[in-house]
Amino acid sequence: MAYPFSGARLDPEEFAFDAIDSLEPDAEKAAYDSLTSLKLVRKRATGERTTVRVKNVEIGADRFVVIAGPCAVESERQVMETAEAVARAGARALRGGGFKPRTSPYAFQGLGLEGLKLLRKAGDAFGLPVVSEAMSDTQVELVAEYADLIQVGTRSMENAALLAALCRCRRPILLKRAMVASVEELLEAAEYLLANGNPNVVLCERGIRTFGKLTRNTCDIVAVPLLHQLTPLPVIVDPSHSTGRRSLVPSLARAAVAIGADGLLVEVHPSPETALSDGAQSLSIPQFGCMMRRLDPYLRLWAEELAESDPVVPAAPR
Amino acid sequence: MAYPFSGARLDPEEFAFDAIDSLEPDAEKAAYDSLTSLKLVRKRATGERTTVRVKNVEIGADRFVVIAGPCAVESERQVMETAEAVARAGARALRGGGFKPRTSPYAFQGLGLEGLKLLRKAGDAFGLPVVSEAMSDTQVELVAEYADLIQVGTRSMENAALLAALCRCRRPILLKRAMVASVEELLEAAEYLLANGNPNVVLCERGIRTFGKLTRNTCDIVAVPLLHQLTPLPVIVDPSHSTGRRSLVPSLARAAVAIGADGLLVEVHPSPETALSDGAQSLSIPQFGCMMRRLDPYLRLWAEELAESDPVVPAAPR
Amino acid sequence: MAYPFSGARLDPEEFAFDAIDSLEPDAEKAAYDSLTSLKLVRKRATGERTTVRVKNVEIGADRFVVIAGPCAVESERQVMETAEAVARAGARALRGGGFKPRTSPYAFQGLGLEGLKLLRKAGDAFGLPVVSEAMSDTQVELVAEYADLIQVGTRSMENAALLAALCRCRRPILLKRAMVASVEELLEAAEYLLANGNPNVVLCERGIRTFGKLTRNTCDIVAVPLLHQLTPLPVIVDPSHSTGRRSLVPSLARAAVAIGADGLLVEVHPSPETALSDGAQSLSIPQFGCMMRRLDPYLRLWAEELAESDPVVPAAPR
Amino acid sequence: MAYPFSGARLDPEEFAFDAIDSLEPDAEKAAYDSLTSLKLVRKRATGERTTVRVKNVEIGADRFVVIAGPCAVESERQVMETAEAVARAGARALRGGGFKPRTSPYAFQGLGLEGLKLLRKAGDAFGLPVVSEAMSDTQVELVAEYADLIQVGTRSMENAALLAALCRCRRPILLKRAMVASVEELLEAAEYLLANGNPNVVLCERGIRTFGKLTRNTCDIVAVPLLHQLTPLPVIVDPSHSTGRRSLVPSLARAAVAIGADGLLVEVHPSPETALSDGAQSLSIPQFGCMMRRLDPYLRLWAEELAESDPVVPAAPR
Repeated sequence: MAYPFSGARLDPEEFAFDAIDSLEPDAEKAAYDSLTSLKLVRKRATGERTTVRVKNVEIGADRFVVIAGPCAVESERQVMETAEAVARAGARALRGGGFKPRTSPYAFQGLGLEGLKLLRKAGDAFGLPVVSEAMSDTQVELVAEYADLIQVGTRSMENAALLAALCRCRRPILLKRAMVASVEELLEAAEYLLANGNPNVVLCERGIRTFGKLTRNTCDIVAVPLLHQLTPLPVIVDPSHSTGRRSLVPSLARAAVAIGADGLLVEVHPSPETALSDGAQSLSIPQFGCMMRRLDPYLRLWAEELAESDPVVPAAPR
Repeated sequence: MAYPFSGARLDPEEFAFDAIDSLEPDAEKAAYDSLTSLKLVRKRATGERTTVRVKNVEIGADRFVVIAGPCAVESERQVMETAEAVARAGARALRGGGFKPRTSPYAFQGLGLEGLKLLRKAGDAFGLPVVSEAMSDTQVELVAEYADLIQVGTRSMENAALLAALCRCRRPILLKRAMVASVEELLEAAEYLLANGNPNVVLCERGIRTFGKLTRNTCDIVAVPLLHQLTPLPVIVDPSHSTGRRSLVPSLARAAVAIGADGLLVEVHPSPETALSDGAQSLSIPQFGCMMRRLDPYLRLWAEELAESDPVVPAAPR
Repeated sequence: MAYPFSGARLDPEEFAFDAIDSLEPDAEKAAYDSLTSLKLVRKRATGERTTVRVKNVEIGADRFVVIAGPCAVESERQVMETAEAVARAGARALRGGGFKPRTSPYAFQGLGLEGLKLLRKAGDAFGLPVVSEAMSDTQVELVAEYADLIQVGTRSMENAALLAALCRCRRPILLKRAMVASVEELLEAAEYLLANGNPNVVLCERGIRTFGKLTRNTCDIVAVPLLHQLTPLPVIVDPSHSTGRRSLVPSLARAAVAIGADGLLVEVHPSPETALSDGAQSLSIPQFGCMMRRLDPYLRLWAEELAESDPVVPAAPR
Repeated sequence: MAYPFSGARLDPEEFAFDAIDSLEPDAEKAAYDSLTSLKLVRKRATGERTTVRVKNVEIGADRFVVIAGPCAVESERQVMETAEAVARAGARALRGGGFKPRTSPYAFQGLGLEGLKLLRKAGDAFGLPVVSEAMSDTQVELVAEYADLIQVGTRSMENAALLAALCRCRRPILLKRAMVASVEELLEAAEYLLANGNPNVVLCERGIRTFGKLTRNTCDIVAVPLLHQLTPLPVIVDPSHSTGRRSLVPSLARAAVAIGADGLLVEVHPSPETALSDGAQSLSIPQFGCMMRRLDPYLRLWAEELAESDPVVPAAPR
């Protein structure tokens, strides 16, 4: 009944872990205590998992979900070409930024509404639901009109006004962990959404900031099974931002599948070297195809692990 | 010719990455520059990998190597029981501490020489080479007498006197990354060993220290393919110290296999709840068996990835 | 001509530092390179400093500015009592939250508009300009109606929609460094404000997140002189959030004065033990008075250092 | 009776803090619990402080102690010239490395014994006790022969063999915090020394490793009053390693005095631009003189704060 990839059910007789009750009376205990205020986002004793439906795709259910696409929508040709290619390679949703959160005022800020329209067109053309980021409460309505899954970016996880607006919208949410948020804080942000009326939340590990200089961030991959022990919400991994370097993306994607993530969020660009943002971490179209083919046997194992576990339940109807 | 798990050869035609040459002229570049002084530890253009022989076992070769055993040797019964069980479950080497590096003067400091003798006895009884830590230059000779692979602990990675003594000893070295060492610094420590006469070095990712409170450390799993891009030395992962929590060990072990690590270092104890050290992160014997059975299909994929790549070369003879 | 507290002019003949030009061609250089895109926020060769006027108070000018008050406005009595006391003790502005950014949906969220009105009333009663946080673009207009200095909280430093709204408002901004923002990123956020029409920006160091558990954050006090080397904007320190523990606040306040900060942002509450938020880091009224008296001789030295330096210039008129 | 610079006695009636008892029942509490095993290093209820005598100089007593000198001893001329200059400027001890801990095998490793002899000669010539690092247990005896205060470097704080050897030697110890050690762990290392027979320990904050790229480390300046609340041992600050950049050293030195440190450890070199190690963070001789003159008024305040507190006690006789 528990989550198939968490240690909790590697083997019921032998692995009778209760991640929470078995804790030592120490600092970790105190950290868990902070979780006791989280009523809705905490896993139930039954071990049921939440499935989040994004148009015709379910995340947290019995198929691994790869979401792929460019960092930012740059042109119709770019997004159509990418959508066609990632659909053919097995991606099940299309990502693409209309509004881009950039710290520097001089960086490319995205095509805005025009970008959203192109993204929608490309998703529809190739049967892919689309994912895009809303950066502020005032953008939510607009993004919700075009996107099937609304992304909360790493810089926005603690933007309470944005979260409040998302509670009132009827789209599911992709909640990315802030660069320095603890797992407890990621769950608090999710609790905020659930407590205020939006039960359809997908969590995303995208790397935390540490002292390392050779990768853009440090992927806290263990957050995936840890979250699966603590919450029924699905958890996906963004190997592009986690590493910042395309040559490391396929390896990390494989690890994410093996550790039991529910999906991936991957940056793909027809011409990474000319991308207006995040080129160094974007896969080219052939590279993405290659990565997907090579993920295949790992995805079969993923499905077998899942099949041994119990059925999941959809998020509460709204 | 390149390492099978690094992006470098996911597919030669499509994935013509050169991890180093393709770098942007930015901060990462500066970090890599610091690597240019590392002559011996750097990967050759041929992509050859180093195999380190530990008695009858080769690390970095065509079989994944699981090293398992108790944190500290506590008694003959404890270590014999563990050795028998891990050998049966598929471990290929036995770990166990004689001398324990403990920050608190009041913590259990290990059985010392007596511990080493028991470890040796247990390894011999079940055909397992043994791994134990030397904490100082003056211990090296003694540890080398009993252990087949000498561990440099996370607190000792920058202990120059210890590294110097290890250069003069004829045993291979298991070099654990310091809690806050960058990948560059781990390679510098390895370079020190190679430059001074000991080419038989296995690197170990064991988690870095970050702000998280729910796990003991944060496993920088991407360090595995990153190191494989940079150095021919084998790289293993310690999921026990990386997490500090046994319920997360099997998940992380699976990810380590999938990302292409050359082996695992796992803490196993017949009775974790009474262990004198690191009980919370030690697997029980049945849990270890369960983990190993469930790793099996991932290890088959690991071997297939490897088979598609080129033969490896042993470390230079001494 | 240069900033009095930066090493740059400790003694012109002997200390001819140019913080930027003297850099080694290494990783730091790369970091500085990222600053070259920051045109407005960068210090001019003349070394002029910016003064930000907040009603009748100037920050970055010839008097050190202590801003004090409760974390959140809780009641008329609480805020009036605090305002009177901090004014008498030497504070020159009153802080107080109407809207509180809380990660947990179950924590006290502030009194909202009612809180802002009470804050305004208390400030007017005791001649103190008031400082309060706007958490979203939609709140900016409302907060600007009541507050003289609008705070951007640590969770909002990268909220681009909020920054954009603040550019259009005529109030000066108190920009707090995000918990994990680099100094470069803090300057990028300031550049965003300057580039879009609001030159009146005060920077605030409030502690970064690290591995330490005994303090809430780690005060990066060296960011103060580093920022003074890089930008003409004033820099203040928040010793309350930096430590999370009231017994450490007075010591850190003293260090902030000595290192040349332009002011302090301190939490004070008439009854910290019953505060609805941040009680552990709030000073009581007598404690604040005691701290201020004991800061006095350090403030005299501060003024002497300043007097030896050149006159400052106000931010460009709007 | 309590430490003059800790909040604990800013004013006895008003500031009746007990740093430990007043803690919230939360994560910090758990961290403090880990301190309860530290019997000797913990502050007594009487608030007495320890004074460590280094030849004719007392650290932790009524005079602030500046220890200055080159990172590494490079030549007789270099060390003599530096010793003379720093003595004249007010330094009370001379630092200088004979054996240098360098991660890269190709970096300058120090002059060894020859360096120690030159350091001794220079100290004797100008009446300064000398400080030098022992990197391993086998070096302790040799370093103890020449140095009056033996430094444990940041890479060695957890080197148990080294600490054990230092317990048996009769010299006082300068214990530098490891790059990523918590305050609790620094105290554990000190407890190890005290528990095994060496009560003469001076603690040193030298910056921790964080994500910042513009400074070499991040000075955790609040560790100074925090340590003063927890332990009677003296605490000094190393502004050179904390920043890695000479233009920031004088500012941080001033903050260290103001926050109540017992001394400074500063790198000075007659010709920083040609230094064989750490040139970028070394002050030139005129810069050091300038810094010392400008520290003067802050040191007078330091002495006044101290004079209001009670007398201190020397470390237990050996």
